[in-house]
Amino acid sequence: MVHTNLFVLLQMSPHHRLQWKTNWKSLDARPLPTWYDESKFGIFVHWGVFSVPAFGSEWFWWHWQGQNPPDPKCVAYMIENYPPGFTYPEFAPEFHAQFFDPDKWADIFEASGAKYVVLTSKHHEGFTTWPSSYSWNWNSVDDGPHRDLVGDLAEAVRNRSLHYGLYNSLYEWFNPLYLADKKNNFTTQDFVLKKLLPELTDLVLRYKPELIWSDGDWEAPDTYWNSTEFLAWLYNDSPVKDVVVTNDRWGAGCYCKHGGYYNCADKYSPGELPGHKWEKCQSVDTQSWGYRKNIQLSELMDLPSIIQDLVQTVAMGGNYLLNVGPTSDGMIPTVFEERLRDVGGWLAVNGEAIYASKPWRVQTENATVPVWYTSNSKESSVFAVFFTKPHGYTFKLYEPVTTDTTVVTLLGNSGPLRWSPLQPAGLVILLPEIEFSSGQAWTLKLDWVK
Amino acid sequence: MVHTNLFVLLQMSPHHRLQWKTNWKSLDARPLPTWYDESKFGIFVHWGVFSVPAFGSEWFWWHWQGQNPPDPKCVAYMIENYPPGFTYPEFAPEFHAQFFDPDKWADIFEASGAKYVVLTSKHHEGFTTWPSSYSWNWNSVDDGPHRDLVGDLAEAVRNRSLHYGLYNSLYEWFNPLYLADKKNNFTTQDFVLKKLLPELTDLVLRYKPELIWSDGDWEAPDTYWNSTEFLAWLYNDSPVKDVVVTNDRWGAGCYCKHGGYYNCADKYSPGELPGHKWEKCQSVDTQSWGYRKNIQLSELMDLPSIIQDLVQTVAMGGNYLLNVGPTSDGMIPTVFEERLRDVGGWLAVNGEAIYASKPWRVQTENATVPVWYTSNSKESSVFAVFFTKPHGYTFKLYEPVTTDTTVVTLLGNSGPLRWSPLQPAGLVILLPEIEFSSGQAWTLKLDWVK
Amino acid sequence: MVHTNLFVLLQMSPHHRLQWKTNWKSLDARPLPTWYDESKFGIFVHWGVFSVPAFGSEWFWWHWQGQNPPDPKCVAYMIENYPPGFTYPEFAPEFHAQFFDPDKWADIFEASGAKYVVLTSKHHEGFTTWPSSYSWNWNSVDDGPHRDLVGDLAEAVRNRSLHYGLYNSLYEWFNPLYLADKKNNFTTQDFVLKKLLPELTDLVLRYKPELIWSDGDWEAPDTYWNSTEFLAWLYNDSPVKDVVVTNDRWGAGCYCKHGGYYNCADKYSPGELPGHKWEKCQSVDTQSWGYRKNIQLSELMDLPSIIQDLVQTVAMGGNYLLNVGPTSDGMIPTVFEERLRDVGGWLAVNGEAIYASKPWRVQTENATVPVWYTSNSKESSVFAVFFTKPHGYTFKLYEPVTTDTTVVTLLGNSGPLRWSPLQPAGLVILLPEIEFSSGQAWTLKLDWVK
Amino acid sequence: MVHTNLFVLLQMSPHHRLQWKTNWKSLDARPLPTWYDESKFGIFVHWGVFSVPAFGSEWFWWHWQGQNPPDPKCVAYMIENYPPGFTYPEFAPEFHAQFFDPDKWADIFEASGAKYVVLTSKHHEGFTTWPSSYSWNWNSVDDGPHRDLVGDLAEAVRNRSLHYGLYNSLYEWFNPLYLADKKNNFTTQDFVLKKLLPELTDLVLRYKPELIWSDGDWEAPDTYWNSTEFLAWLYNDSPVKDVVVTNDRWGAGCYCKHGGYYNCADKYSPGELPGHKWEKCQSVDTQSWGYRKNIQLSELMDLPSIIQDLVQTVAMGGNYLLNVGPTSDGMIPTVFEERLRDVGGWLAVNGEAIYASKPWRVQTENATVPVWYTSNSKESSVFAVFFTKPHGYTFKLYEPVTTDTTVVTLLGNSGPLRWSPLQPAGLVILLPEIEFSSGQAWTLKLDWVK
Repeated sequence: MVHTNLFVLLQMSPHHRLQWKTNWKSLDARPLPTWYDESKFGIFVHWGVFSVPAFGSEWFWWHWQGQNPPDPKCVAYMIENYPPGFTYPEFAPEFHAQFFDPDKWADIFEASGAKYVVLTSKHHEGFTTWPSSYSWNWNSVDDGPHRDLVGDLAEAVRNRSLHYGLYNSLYEWFNPLYLADKKNNFTTQDFVLKKLLPELTDLVLRYKPELIWSDGDWEAPDTYWNSTEFLAWLYNDSPVKDVVVTNDRWGAGCYCKHGGYYNCADKYSPGELPGHKWEKCQSVDTQSWGYRKNIQLSELMDLPSIIQDLVQTVAMGGNYLLNVGPTSDGMIPTVFEERLRDVGGWLAVNGEAIYASKPWRVQTENATVPVWYTSNSKESSVFAVFFTKPHGYTFKLYEPVTTDTTVVTLLGNSGPLRWSPLQPAGLVILLPEIEFSSGQAWTLKLDWVK
Repeated sequence: MVHTNLFVLLQMSPHHRLQWKTNWKSLDARPLPTWYDESKFGIFVHWGVFSVPAFGSEWFWWHWQGQNPPDPKCVAYMIENYPPGFTYPEFAPEFHAQFFDPDKWADIFEASGAKYVVLTSKHHEGFTTWPSSYSWNWNSVDDGPHRDLVGDLAEAVRNRSLHYGLYNSLYEWFNPLYLADKKNNFTTQDFVLKKLLPELTDLVLRYKPELIWSDGDWEAPDTYWNSTEFLAWLYNDSPVKDVVVTNDRWGAGCYCKHGGYYNCADKYSPGELPGHKWEKCQSVDTQSWGYRKNIQLSELMDLPSIIQDLVQTVAMGGNYLLNVGPTSDGMIPTVFEERLRDVGGWLAVNGEAIYASKPWRVQTENATVPVWYTSNSKESSVFAVFFTKPHGYTFKLYEPVTTDTTVVTLLGNSGPLRWSPLQPAGLVILLPEIEFSSGQAWTLKLDWVK
Repeated sequence: MVHTNLFVLLQMSPHHRLQWKTNWKSLDARPLPTWYDESKFGIFVHWGVFSVPAFGSEWFWWHWQGQNPPDPKCVAYMIENYPPGFTYPEFAPEFHAQFFDPDKWADIFEASGAKYVVLTSKHHEGFTTWPSSYSWNWNSVDDGPHRDLVGDLAEAVRNRSLHYGLYNSLYEWFNPLYLADKKNNFTTQDFVLKKLLPELTDLVLRYKPELIWSDGDWEAPDTYWNSTEFLAWLYNDSPVKDVVVTNDRWGAGCYCKHGGYYNCADKYSPGELPGHKWEKCQSVDTQSWGYRKNIQLSELMDLPSIIQDLVQTVAMGGNYLLNVGPTSDGMIPTVFEERLRDVGGWLAVNGEAIYASKPWRVQTENATVPVWYTSNSKESSVFAVFFTKPHGYTFKLYEPVTTDTTVVTLLGNSGPLRWSPLQPAGLVILLPEIEFSSGQAWTLKLDWVK
Repeated sequence: MVHTNLFVLLQMSPHHRLQWKTNWKSLDARPLPTWYDESKFGIFVHWGVFSVPAFGSEWFWWHWQGQNPPDPKCVAYMIENYPPGFTYPEFAPEFHAQFFDPDKWADIFEASGAKYVVLTSKHHEGFTTWPSSYSWNWNSVDDGPHRDLVGDLAEAVRNRSLHYGLYNSLYEWFNPLYLADKKNNFTTQDFVLKKLLPELTDLVLRYKPELIWSDGDWEAPDTYWNSTEFLAWLYNDSPVKDVVVTNDRWGAGCYCKHGGYYNCADKYSPGELPGHKWEKCQSVDTQSWGYRKNIQLSELMDLPSIIQDLVQTVAMGGNYLLNVGPTSDGMIPTVFEERLRDVGGWLAVNGEAIYASKPWRVQTENATVPVWYTSNSKESSVFAVFFTKPHGYTFKLYEPVTTDTTVVTLLGNSGPLRWSPLQPAGLVILLPEIEFSSGQAWTLKLDWVK
């Protein structure tokens, strides 16, 4: 039977008591599989035809030919460097990926300390980085790399016990089926029934992703996208029903409200501890998620900013999904490799404060210098991370309540530190004689405090 | 509503008494619109991505990568001239069509004496030469020419009062939706419902073709293609319902049996007068319908062969559809232009024997030299065309029965010719002193014979 | 020693009595090797990087970027089809020549009846179609075809006993060494000594051409080009000293005056019988010597025009060099192939009037219809060629003086024709009953007339 | 007059007493212009057609097609990614340099603390990055960037008061003129007289480089290259005669022996203080001087290695020329930008120990930790640079002899440090409480020691 009937079948399923119903109330009640919260740190990878022009950002096509008025820089770039009339699909043959070595990528991701990897299986441009039957001649096997990028990376990532997730854009800027539905105010679903859902279902069946990072939902309501039907299938019947995690981008108005964990906006950071699991996605290149050929150093996050962002996100209960954009040749630019390996170096020492941690009762305080707190899952240990070089060797914390058995250590340093309780609460710690230089981050571990 | 429901709608149509039912018995009974038979001579144009490699034939993709074993010449050509892994879709950006001037084409077609033109709107490769919503990024606006080739030629052709037809391949060699249906022994119709019929319907609505030259039907039954449903819509409800003509390639076993006129096989010539309107399609390049870069003179039809083929086809009640393959630059090669203009030169003199003619009671006889007969529509005139230089000046015909009022002329020559009746039938004609050289064709017109 | 000293060496040669001195008086006195005049008909081939844009003509580069103002059509073509800043040398990688089969070319040339072939070894663009050491990375081995086109064709042509000549442009529009000399009013010879003469000498030594078709000489005097020095070397010392033929383009003012045979202007036809051997070069494409992608039939010479031109040229003592422009793919376009084979068909019948013929005492007369005369080398036979279909069967010629033994035949027809003498001179011939159609050419052979 | 006569003219110069003769004894005696030794730190830039394949190294062409046997990795890369027969010159059109912004480059170079910049004007491939008249169609204006890269960078570099030098390869791997001379055992000088010297002279006249970094000399003696003649002209008559500096690669056996400063081998470091000014060139990418698309982090120098290399080189009397390879798009990869800016950050604090310094009487010692010494030009201050974090806060140096007025400071730290003399010599210094972390470098400044 044709795939579009999958959802019809679903309704008529012999499972009389499907666990998850096709409504948000039911779906939102599903507990998040635990691997996700414990992972804390993931790598986001934006790769597609946009990596060929690699100009402006991965939204290049839209900025050049979609928005009104178009971005004059994009227009000028095309005029200056390409023949008149050149179209975006004509970039695809230049997506060579000749150096793509999934094992080298996965080595870098593993070395970064990340526990999951999310690759764009299809961005808003519609090009699938896998051989989708519903995207004939507009996918990475038919055109450009001549490889199943999604599948090849899957294997390498899983061989290193990392979790594997896939980004999928619901809409496609210029897909004529989508544009026709849009013109009909989404009263028709040609695009959803003939393209999106058959393809997305196939994607799940083929690659069994443990995370679906949905995007491109905002122009239409979830009823257009058939989101609750898809999620019910995903949670009830799909091969990943027990392990899969998704985010909240399933229709206009859904974000920060429905689905799995919340992404809310890109690069979103909450002001106070949210009541729902969330994730901050952030790109090393602050101007783009996809690779840019003319990237400059001043536009990149430096290592301290990344670590600080990671720590604050985790302290606030979030996961941190750090993005890199590979080149169309299939390389992760060395400057990104360096950032990832350096984060990994920090996590090798300080990971105890991050992985499988929980937010503490206090997220942050500013005594000697600002600190961000996490605790271990049993709440027997509290971690205070700071990024500023303290003056002198005494370090005060007001929030922790010490006990007789309290032990304080500095991660990466041997031996317990001397400390004294403060009144009415808190403690003052004597720091060891080590290098505290600007731009680094240290973790004080406090066992048996309250 | 989605297009796939068009056929559902059709069934429930408020027209209680649709003229044409969705079965062959009904559809086959539809009379052919008269313009078609009267036209006799049309031009077939094969143009597509295959015009880029322009090697072997328009079946290049199949010969290279589809059939088993592949054609070693095609494989070798790719190995010797392209990087490893190069795919067929990557030819599309080289389909520039920069010199495509529809008016110049239409001038040539008009000069050839043809009365209709049939362009490939989509060959088996699936690439549409018009902006099909169902062939995103695999059509001539999104990739390559950046033009609506079907639409641009339509206007030029119609400005010259020529009829306009479109070739459409039902199947697409490598379309994964089709391949999946095929794997399911055509018990599924994903390809037909999501791709073929919405697209074909849209093609009709947009360009209002007066002829649909269906092809690529043979692997599946017409019930898979939903052919009778489509034709019922085409004949009952489409904007071309009164004028449209189709051929007979609507499913395995249909050819020479169902549909509009019969093509039967490519280049088919019947042994005796068929009982059903038919068409012979023939290519100037005897090795290919699409352009070939390495074409050689010895592979081309010469002018006498073409004229002879045209005359014999018309004498047998057929239409003659002569094919040329333009270059990917958008030019009709001059050697084809020359053939077409030369046919037009002959028709300017002899067209009376061709246009709107009917087969005569006898198709051919061999008295002095072989002749082929046609008659005018009122059967008041009979035309005898011959291609062989006769010895001497007397010319016998045994089949025509003369009357008192019989007048004989040689088309292109002034004045009636002298003749005498023969017994028991026929006549002997005294030819004028003109050039009868090999490789030419002359028409004797006999008014008021039986 | 460096090649530029070759000419110094020449002066100091131990051959005390060099046959040909480095002055025009001496050089002009050299008799033309006999093969040339006997050949009468040759094929000219313009092939180079200009065959890639194949737009306008082989002068494309100059029209686009050299002349002031530039040709707006060329400028517009580049703007519309190429990225800004695209340069002419960047066309070279697209000169693939993948179908170049020298044997097939030579077969066509032989079938045309030509007795010599002249290929562009270097046109004004400077690109050599052979691996010149003095044109590094701007020749057909380093870039584009990756083949020695001059050498490969040489072998095929000679295997068919055709003579082989090479076209060579003295100047190069954009060579900076040439432009510097030109700026110095040709008081410096950097270009000549470092580039032109070493290269041309090498060309002769490598390929031993029997004809050097010099061109591009007109901007500078022969003293700049060192033409007399080169020719003295060519005639005295080169491996082709006994057989080589050259033309007259060896410096401003030289043409029609110095050198070997005279080309005078392109497509030159003299008004009366010249006193010096000459050659008319003419292109089947009347608009260009190089291939044009957008060529149209109306711009081509038809067969009758070519035959007429050939006959008139030979009647006036000239050789006829008919040009075709191959594609960058390495094919001779079929329309050119057809013209050449058709000329060959005519020569197969009428060649007796052409090959090794001499101008007769009268070149042309107009009695019944215009005729052009040639005679055989012994002057025992006179040929009268005519292109117009005569009215009736009697044919008058006033110029030949008949004798008792005069025999008249029509070439291609068996048996002698009946004729009667006219007074005071001439004869009237009774033509046979054959096809005389417009656009053809027939030869009356008159043995033993004066 | 032709350029090759420049050297003839030189000999006949009206300056009866040319200061520098055409022999090494005279030329080697020329004092080095002072700007060079004072600069200490320069940036080397390798950019050319090799930046397009960007595979293996800038020696790609040689490794692929020159050496015997070829490098199998290079051969495989071409087989896997390019059509058969693809040639190196065909890479040139892909050298787009579309993002080349000389001011941004010069900003980075200035920020690195370098005082001079050396760009490849022509590497062994022969492609000139300026419009050389002697390299027609094989230079950056005729093909690829369509820009004068040498000229454009010159202006930006000089606007920042940096000195500008040009790398020039004497030989060209595949230049047929060079290969012919080589085949003649360098008894002919076609290449030198027609290509190398006219071009090199023109380069000097056009861009007035203050440094000529000669290379590619080793296959032939300096008498072949006419090196002493060129240098005599450069030092006596050229527009840069008073400021220009060159290195020692002027012929087989010259290096480390003749010319200006000594480069000796690439990446050469002497074991003890050399008696002649020298320069160490080193590439951030340890595997290549040119950009490599598939570069990996582990192959790059990290910041500490670079600083250590710089300090040790300067301590030994050398200059340090640090190389980066821009992309064919015209960008300096961000990872290189980061290294350069970080070196600049270190020099901003520690530059006093580097710029215009002199080697001290002792170059290095290992007391507390290894230190490397320099002194200021007046020898009133000595600098001791160390890279290893010392244990504790006391720091011993045995070599300096203190005086009553000795003052010790740590560069970047305010205030003098406490110290005590040691017997028989040396001193012990009390370090301040600052961050001493691994991988950094600190400078102790000792005023008024001996």
